Amino acid sequence: MNNKFKSISFLLLSIGVSFSMLAQHHHDRKINFPDVPGYLTLKCDFHQHSIFSDGKVYPSIRVEEAIKDGLDAISITEHLEYQPHKEDIPHPDRNRAYQIALETKKSMKDTTLIIANGSEITREMPPGHSNAIFIKDANLLLKDSVIDVFREAKKQGAFIFWNHPHWKGQAHDGVAKLTDIHKKLIKEKLINGIEIVNEHVYSTEALEIALANDLTFIGASDVHGLIDWEYNVHKGGHRPITLVFAKEKSEEGIKAALFDRSTAIWFNNTLIGKQEFLEPLINASLIVKKAKYLKTSWSQHKKPLTILEVIIQNNSDAEYILENTSDYLLHNNADIVTIAPQHKTIILVKTKQQEESINLSFNVLNAVVAPKKHAHIQMKITIDK
Amino acid sequence: MNNKFKSISFLLLSIGVSFSMLAQHHHDRKINFPDVPGYLTLKCDFHQHSIFSDGKVYPSIRVEEAIKDGLDAISITEHLEYQPHKEDIPHPDRNRAYQIALETKKSMKDTTLIIANGSEITREMPPGHSNAIFIKDANLLLKDSVIDVFREAKKQGAFIFWNHPHWKGQAHDGVAKLTDIHKKLIKEKLINGIEIVNEHVYSTEALEIALANDLTFIGASDVHGLIDWEYNVHKGGHRPITLVFAKEKSEEGIKAALFDRSTAIWFNNTLIGKQEFLEPLINASLIVKKAKYLKTSWSQHKKPLTILEVIIQNNSDAEYILENTSDYLLHNNADIVTIAPQHKTIILVKTKQQEESINLSFNVLNAVVAPKKHAHIQMKITIDK
Amino acid sequence: MNNKFKSISFLLLSIGVSFSMLAQHHHDRKINFPDVPGYLTLKCDFHQHSIFSDGKVYPSIRVEEAIKDGLDAISITEHLEYQPHKEDIPHPDRNRAYQIALETKKSMKDTTLIIANGSEITREMPPGHSNAIFIKDANLLLKDSVIDVFREAKKQGAFIFWNHPHWKGQAHDGVAKLTDIHKKLIKEKLINGIEIVNEHVYSTEALEIALANDLTFIGASDVHGLIDWEYNVHKGGHRPITLVFAKEKSEEGIKAALFDRSTAIWFNNTLIGKQEFLEPLINASLIVKKAKYLKTSWSQHKKPLTILEVIIQNNSDAEYILENTSDYLLHNNADIVTIAPQHKTIILVKTKQQEESINLSFNVLNAVVAPKKHAHIQMKITIDK
Amino acid sequence: MNNKFKSISFLLLSIGVSFSMLAQHHHDRKINFPDVPGYLTLKCDFHQHSIFSDGKVYPSIRVEEAIKDGLDAISITEHLEYQPHKEDIPHPDRNRAYQIALETKKSMKDTTLIIANGSEITREMPPGHSNAIFIKDANLLLKDSVIDVFREAKKQGAFIFWNHPHWKGQAHDGVAKLTDIHKKLIKEKLINGIEIVNEHVYSTEALEIALANDLTFIGASDVHGLIDWEYNVHKGGHRPITLVFAKEKSEEGIKAALFDRSTAIWFNNTLIGKQEFLEPLINASLIVKKAKYLKTSWSQHKKPLTILEVIIQNNSDAEYILENTSDYLLHNNADIVTIAPQHKTIILVKTKQQEESINLSFNVLNAVVAPKKHAHIQMKITIDK
Repeated sequence: MNNKFKSISFLLLSIGVSFSMLAQHHHDRKINFPDVPGYLTLKCDFHQHSIFSDGKVYPSIRVEEAIKDGLDAISITEHLEYQPHKEDIPHPDRNRAYQIALETKKSMKDTTLIIANGSEITREMPPGHSNAIFIKDANLLLKDSVIDVFREAKKQGAFIFWNHPHWKGQAHDGVAKLTDIHKKLIKEKLINGIEIVNEHVYSTEALEIALANDLTFIGASDVHGLIDWEYNVHKGGHRPITLVFAKEKSEEGIKAALFDRSTAIWFNNTLIGKQEFLEPLINASLIVKKAKYLKTSWSQHKKPLTILEVIIQNNSDAEYILENTSDYLLHNNADIVTIAPQHKTIILVKTKQQEESINLSFNVLNAVVAPKKHAHIQMKITIDK
Repeated sequence: MNNKFKSISFLLLSIGVSFSMLAQHHHDRKINFPDVPGYLTLKCDFHQHSIFSDGKVYPSIRVEEAIKDGLDAISITEHLEYQPHKEDIPHPDRNRAYQIALETKKSMKDTTLIIANGSEITREMPPGHSNAIFIKDANLLLKDSVIDVFREAKKQGAFIFWNHPHWKGQAHDGVAKLTDIHKKLIKEKLINGIEIVNEHVYSTEALEIALANDLTFIGASDVHGLIDWEYNVHKGGHRPITLVFAKEKSEEGIKAALFDRSTAIWFNNTLIGKQEFLEPLINASLIVKKAKYLKTSWSQHKKPLTILEVIIQNNSDAEYILENTSDYLLHNNADIVTIAPQHKTIILVKTKQQEESINLSFNVLNAVVAPKKHAHIQMKITIDK
Repeated sequence: MNNKFKSISFLLLSIGVSFSMLAQHHHDRKINFPDVPGYLTLKCDFHQHSIFSDGKVYPSIRVEEAIKDGLDAISITEHLEYQPHKEDIPHPDRNRAYQIALETKKSMKDTTLIIANGSEITREMPPGHSNAIFIKDANLLLKDSVIDVFREAKKQGAFIFWNHPHWKGQAHDGVAKLTDIHKKLIKEKLINGIEIVNEHVYSTEALEIALANDLTFIGASDVHGLIDWEYNVHKGGHRPITLVFAKEKSEEGIKAALFDRSTAIWFNNTLIGKQEFLEPLINASLIVKKAKYLKTSWSQHKKPLTILEVIIQNNSDAEYILENTSDYLLHNNADIVTIAPQHKTIILVKTKQQEESINLSFNVLNAVVAPKKHAHIQMKITIDK
Repeated sequence: MNNKFKSISFLLLSIGVSFSMLAQHHHDRKINFPDVPGYLTLKCDFHQHSIFSDGKVYPSIRVEEAIKDGLDAISITEHLEYQPHKEDIPHPDRNRAYQIALETKKSMKDTTLIIANGSEITREMPPGHSNAIFIKDANLLLKDSVIDVFREAKKQGAFIFWNHPHWKGQAHDGVAKLTDIHKKLIKEKLINGIEIVNEHVYSTEALEIALANDLTFIGASDVHGLIDWEYNVHKGGHRPITLVFAKEKSEEGIKAALFDRSTAIWFNNTLIGKQEFLEPLINASLIVKKAKYLKTSWSQHKKPLTILEVIIQNNSDAEYILENTSDYLLHNNADIVTIAPQHKTIILVKTKQQEESINLSFNVLNAVVAPKKHAHIQMKITIDK
């Protein structure tokens, strides 16, 4: 086209591209997701280890890592039955990592991080490994019968989830499989949640089990070494976490949300959760900052343009991969639109006639609500005059 | 899981994540796509301007930009009928930009860049603007009757394509529309291709017209200012180009491929082309470097693992967004897998039993073969012993 | 030392290091130096070319580059006697680049950039090349006798400076040499300044000539191609500029300052200017944000510490290389201290006893006031209670 | 100057600038210094802590950090007399951290890292803290009388150095002071070295003590938490280390070099060592890749140019800050030249007449050989024909 004929909006478009690309340089390691209507979005990692079972760091490092990552809550969940450092660290009290974490928080004068006492029940399959968090005394969980351990945890008010059901150490094919003992534990409410994501691994079968048995979705780092190294935080990586949608930021608030199954998982660039949670989360992430019809300084046709410029601010860490399912075609994208994290992106919508508002809809391809099923969002766009 | 039980492959997985993220730091501005079986993949931008119509740079800059971008061929296509700098630059010869570009190439001792003589036929709609490239003498195109201009270009052996049919200066709704005069020009082979991408804009309707009328797919920068600024090349951006699949790197080779419709378009992170071109291009981009079953140093089950680690090297600039359509589920991804450009990515495939080879298949969501239709690829993976 | 014994100030120290290093990621291309007491610090490039002599861009690009670089004033100084593009651009008016630059500024709605009309008098040595800026009509400078050209420029009120006296095209040894004709021109006030820096080249002899003859210090890009490419602006590079210390931001303000010799040069990471200008500039760059004695949570000695923590904010683009000439030794540096641009740096000063204020003094090694002589600064530090 | 007149060498110059700036993006955390004639340059950190005294990590992390940093040797030197984690970790064997480090090395199949057994003798001043490394059994150092501890260490063949004599916990003014007991220990060869650099702190007085008493120069991290966090390794930072110039890479080779006082210190961007060590190290770092007289395609003078282009490859991590003390002036720098790490830099030397070889000499301002005294280097440059 002619240079002279270009309108200012093309400059904006070019700037828009620039903003998106800047996202690649977003290096702050704090994990960011917005709150959703009626709920706080709390970033939690409930599966971690320290030197008090088979981890490689003093518990204070877990607290420092969590604060650096901007987490709201953690639990250090030492193996009850697996104590490879016992020769050097023969501590009698299985609450020790928790106590040291609390002391660290205090000495750092931190007032934001919630630390839940927790333990990993570490058995062969079935039932494999499970985490009991929000327990009162880990020492009382040292029992022979695994069912007794679960019952004691429940007695203490714990929220209990099945860890990495797909772990290759216990499943040669990486496939999570529900056994009779799991069914029994679930039925007795001794298992309340399930890890769909553990460390670097994701399980479609665990997602199916969660949906079929109404279990809370859990994602966790299961970190033993350093978060920085395991998750390449200085190259834009992050640990997997559970996003807990809570009424308040407190132990009670989180526990209530976990029992209510109000969670989602943030893993690599993927969100995993039910449509009822992911839809508001994604809508809260994507804010329309401007919606205005393009103008042109020159045209052959003299008609008002019906190409709508929409500037969307992404207030989350997710690079959303959207598939356009609207009635409208886009002027600067095919059907797939990528929305860079923490930046503005411009999309141009061809509306055929000038409207006062339009509805856009998208499948969010990096947001999973069920096997092969993605979150779907609607955006009602009120057009600026 | 227990720290002790982790196998080396988990370390690799972690490294894989790291490689992917490194891609964000890939700042070399040269555009890279591999050759495909039987053809060279040539990177071409056939729509550009200089001061000899309404551009802002001397033609030599277009040559330098092209060499910096690693292009194989360009054309500087000055407007025949739009000469806003005429007062200052009243050159009588409309081949002048072409001549200066050739001189620049010579003075730079470059032997790789092909420069095609070209002109932009600049008329109101219909037929709007068109580029004639591989012409012999632009001066002879200065005729009153637009049809005469197309005929003269054809007489000179030109390849002619319809520019930005969706341009807001000539289409208030941004919609490309085929008129009778276009049909006539196409029928007489006076229009051979169509821009589906021009500058920052994409047209689904132009794609439909291309498919319905068997026109060559063209994407071009239409640059007037600086490529660096318009396309944010220092933040990872690039100009839109036409990928020409040619038998040889020569004017004749490119021309033959253009008339054969052997092209695709590279625009932002999207490829647009027919399945017959995109499939080999994507397959040539994604090289399997390793495919081996995971091992574990500890397991409860004592069975050989059936989780297959596949390391894929992406030899292109595209960040491929793959949707898994295989019979197999993945161990570290839901159904969407992102393959970072110019780096290695690890995927873990659950094969249920140990195989000698498997077939993976994916829809490539950022590769468009028709409106709402994506390229599809098959990968036969031979498994290392 | 013992972990427990470390005080918070060590954390700060560590953060200080981090701030310094962040400076390496400072990629905004705008050039930044603070104002000095009584004067604005204006960033100016008075030597540039466009297609109207032997440059490669339309003048509008020079305006866009200047705005991107955050400059306050520019001049496009086409060669009067060297017109290699004359065949294509036979414009009769030698003010044309200036006029187009003004139109560009207007069309961009810019109200900040000052554009001075200028020309390059382009003769063999002696006297070689000179720039006359703030002229009224370049056409009147087209005279045979070089002395007549200088006189006409002076008649128009021009500020005139000798260009690249060290240029290898006119000095085989790269050495600037004052000839009789130069002496005469200087004596008659027909040469008012001299380029000590031109493009990528610096001349100690030009600095000596400037000092001996009381000429204004000039540094300029002499750009013919693109600033982005010549000066690697996307990797932290910048064009050489003249910093003009002016009473007001206006043509008259700049002209007055140039005739008053109130300038310095910013070239790579080096400032060149007289002590009277560099000292206030550097002092304005380096702001003490905090000065407080360290504390310690544990000590054997029970005495108040006499190690002073000073946090210095560098508000300029210069990475200052300081040589400590104070009476005090530093606790975290040997005698050389590097102060990263646009960031905070912490220095620790050993004062032997607790003071209310101290004086620090430094040679600034990347600030040149005469051959082998560096700027010297004093910092009076008032110590926080 | 005229665009047409520029020679290729100016392009090179511009590339040179680019290379230097690229250095800012050098993110590999491995520490790199070249070997010197007759000696290997070994990178060593002999002062570190783990959970077995007051550190925050399991000893295995120290081994992993060292391998990531490319170190040749480390020692984990737990406090003998300070055991704040004793309640949890009441291990009876003071060699435990050393043993675990060895096991980690073995399990990682590493064959390059040398691990020396060591302990920190942790007393009030005088004599304060000292490290004994290359000991045989730490348990035998648990004695009441400090002199007995030193004697036992010596009996075991240890190399012993005085730690952080300037530490604010034991010196309120941060000043290292030699006491009678230190003199006695030095005289009896019970103190062999001294930390001039500890963690983030540097001591000019320690340097004076080292020179006056012929003690080995030591720099060490004294890390308690994570190297990554304390030293910002992902922003280009590094821990302080001792460079040991050894005849062979072995425990014996390092020990011999330490007793021979063949060391230097690498701290932030500063080298500290004797001229006899720093001169060969810097000369080994700076390799002349090309030295050729510039040519010009156009000149008024028709004489061969006497401006010499020298391309220097810096094979080290140090950004050398050179002060030109040669007989020659530079064409692209004032007297200070900065040589970016791990990249090429171009300097242009004005030689007045064409020579076959020249000698350049520089003070290296970030290389300290004594208080306020810098290393000095000579470079003999043979000029390419």
